[in-house]
Amino acid sequence: MSEYIAPIERLIEKFRMLPGVGARTAARYAFAALNFSEADAVAFADAIVGVKRDVYTCPVCFGLAGSEEGCDICRSEKRDRSVICVVESAKDVITMERVRGFRGVYHVLGGALSPLDKVTAADLKIKELVARVDEGGVEEIIIATNPTPKGETTATYIARLLEGRDVKVSRLAHGIPVGSDIEYADEITLMRAMEGRRFF
Amino acid sequence: MSEYIAPIERLIEKFRMLPGVGARTAARYAFAALNFSEADAVAFADAIVGVKRDVYTCPVCFGLAGSEEGCDICRSEKRDRSVICVVESAKDVITMERVRGFRGVYHVLGGALSPLDKVTAADLKIKELVARVDEGGVEEIIIATNPTPKGETTATYIARLLEGRDVKVSRLAHGIPVGSDIEYADEITLMRAMEGRRFF
Repeated sequence: MSEYIAPIERLIEKFRMLPGVGARTAARYAFAALNFSEADAVAFADAIVGVKRDVYTCPVCFGLAGSEEGCDICRSEKRDRSVICVVESAKDVITMERVRGFRGVYHVLGGALSPLDKVTAADLKIKELVARVDEGGVEEIIIATNPTPKGETTATYIARLLEGRDVKVSRLAHGIPVGSDIEYADEITLMRAMEGRRFF
Repeated sequence: MSEYIAPIERLIEKFRMLPGVGARTAARYAFAALNFSEADAVAFADAIVGVKRDVYTCPVCFGLAGSEEGCDICRSEKRDRSVICVVESAKDVITMERVRGFRGVYHVLGGALSPLDKVTAADLKIKELVARVDEGGVEEIIIATNPTPKGETTATYIARLLEGRDVKVSRLAHGIPVGSDIEYADEITLMRAMEGRRFF
């Protein structure tokens, strides 16, 4: 016997598809949804279908776009196409955009190299990145993959691939987060902070 | 300028309607939904609308029902109608059902008394509970409202209301959770555990 009646069971199962949502949280969400107004429920349902229907992949950077023509950043006159920031996922573009100062463009890899998960260079938009560099006009590639083993491997791979081409390749600095306390930094971060120390 | 493109922004807003979901979690969910298959997205949307459409309120206990005729518990031949367990919400019925031994029926109040939130006895199914008692055949009312100030107030209110009627009224015991450590129990729980101590 199932604990919940069928329509609730079904919705719980759907909520469990979301990252980090277990049985308990999914049930909490399902019961909350039960108390939505009819209009809210329909709007929620539309939003889920809509996000699949109305979101496109930018043909230039592979980030998210509101139309087939490409994303706002790639189409903007104000962005500097000579600097490309390489990120793992489309969501990282939004994170990086919070850095107000950056006026370059992006390149979304669609993941990071991971031999164990059978993610090879062919599965990522690496070939497309090289093509963008080869088209000319690119002066710097800032690699902003995650500071994880996979992200580091991907960064190194791309850096090597671009060796010999007339483009500077950089990597985001590691170090102590601003406003944080040294006490809370792990050893590897501290080591990286030491390595990357700057002189006054 | 909004951070995300419109369809994503819209879905994030919907996910934020769920309990305990802030901007960051909602964004994580929305990006996960973006990677759903078309079929999964449609099924998810259907499940949300379906939970509104296919879930009924039991006309006897006010719990959730799969049909207009009432819930499985109230309609079951195997349940003891002389014992009614009073809970705050429909979800609590499921929690209580995990207590394998209970063979009685339920009564869902639809909340707890809370003068500050303007929830009075008239907003809860208290009148309906008294009507069930007055119909006869009820021997015991087990009040299983939450061990919160609101839940306690509601329990006391119902107990007083039923005074003079030929029905036993009980309350779930408070105490140390089984398998837990005394060290982790708060003072009020410990005090209640002392008060409710049982002799060998």
